[in-house]
Amino acid sequence: MSGWLRIVGLGPGAEALVTPEVTAVLAEATDVVGYIPYVARVAERPGLTLHASDNRVEIDRSRHALEMAAEGHRVVVVSSGDPGVFAMASAVFEAVDSGPRAWRDLDIQVLPGITAMLAAAARAGAPLGHDFCCINLSDNLKPWPLIERRLRLAAQADFAMAFYNPRSKSRPEGFEKTLQILREECEPERLILFARAVSRPDEALRVAHLAEATPEMADMQTVVLVGSSRTRLIERDGSPIVYTPRFTPE
Amino acid sequence: MSGWLRIVGLGPGAEALVTPEVTAVLAEATDVVGYIPYVARVAERPGLTLHASDNRVEIDRSRHALEMAAEGHRVVVVSSGDPGVFAMASAVFEAVDSGPRAWRDLDIQVLPGITAMLAAAARAGAPLGHDFCCINLSDNLKPWPLIERRLRLAAQADFAMAFYNPRSKSRPEGFEKTLQILREECEPERLILFARAVSRPDEALRVAHLAEATPEMADMQTVVLVGSSRTRLIERDGSPIVYTPRFTPE
Repeated sequence: MSGWLRIVGLGPGAEALVTPEVTAVLAEATDVVGYIPYVARVAERPGLTLHASDNRVEIDRSRHALEMAAEGHRVVVVSSGDPGVFAMASAVFEAVDSGPRAWRDLDIQVLPGITAMLAAAARAGAPLGHDFCCINLSDNLKPWPLIERRLRLAAQADFAMAFYNPRSKSRPEGFEKTLQILREECEPERLILFARAVSRPDEALRVAHLAEATPEMADMQTVVLVGSSRTRLIERDGSPIVYTPRFTPE
Repeated sequence: MSGWLRIVGLGPGAEALVTPEVTAVLAEATDVVGYIPYVARVAERPGLTLHASDNRVEIDRSRHALEMAAEGHRVVVVSSGDPGVFAMASAVFEAVDSGPRAWRDLDIQVLPGITAMLAAAARAGAPLGHDFCCINLSDNLKPWPLIERRLRLAAQADFAMAFYNPRSKSRPEGFEKTLQILREECEPERLILFARAVSRPDEALRVAHLAEATPEMADMQTVVLVGSSRTRLIERDGSPIVYTPRFTPE
């Protein structure tokens, strides 16, 4: 038995953003497990079984991966972006924590990836170039009042902010409430970026002032970045540059 | 004239964590610019000039890179980790913002990298698996009271936290004050991780409870991760797993 489990990040979409470390473990794997669109990014080959599953079954998927590793398979759990940022790593460790004692001693490693907020920030310039926070706006797994509290405290701390999962069909109103909270806490000129499908063929980047932002500017493929009060815009031909200076005066 | 400027992240240290995109632009560059230890990670070759400079000259370095790109060179500015997280991207855009108008229309792109906090989190498990914030503890470029305010608000928001630049010889007391603030805001059992030189030969990871943490556990090579109130530790043979569950109850 020489099974192992690797929980890896495939980055935001482009092959050129997958780390060589991740490419190497995919080449050694016997089984790849993950959400359908992420497993679809892994090339089929003899000796590799792809196990694609639907959204919201993360714990079942994790247990399946752990069972196979315990049986001696070389299993890769794939996430987009980084597996530790609102992705599969926490789900797998929840399954380990509540599972058989033997699972703890499996050979498990997490391999990092380029998470969406950093790919989006790179496209825009450097909006996260100073202190920032990262919030999952989905209230599937936490109460909405906690999200609201975090948004207000983050604005009061003058963090730049990155929002994952801003909006879905099942939660049409959450992002509208988010924009309303930001308008109560921040000035109307605050810069906000909508980065959709970064590094993929349908990539789109939009920069707005908070006063003009509307809920329809985001969907589940979008990462939203909100500048701090010090974030600046450099106008030029083509898309502007958005960056947060390193220096904050007294 | 077909000069360009790429501001790239080399990741935390291991070659296997450098993205293919970054490797490709390094192969096309005529000039590489950066802080001495990061430029030392780029292989010398004919046709490539390495421009290594000391710490704290980020704006001079940025202007030099922009001048060379304007003259037609293919210039890569290197940072460790991700260039947009407390690294060179903001410095370059500060130089663009205050420089000649023509610099705005240069072909400039930021290429993301694996930032230290995500590499450190991956090694430990998934401590940043829920909402989190990222704070540079150096007060070289911002007043200490702003850092203190951000620490307290982040703790009150129950964010997991990542700290860059926790401690240096010129700022021996800052991290001690940080631990004191955390002890005032968080419970003594709060999990704290010290991740030094992740992915490099001298890598070291240490997990402690906040009550036991001391300033000497961190240096400038260390990223410090602080769990939220929900972060858990899974004991096992070898180093424990630290993760933050996805679910937060009402």
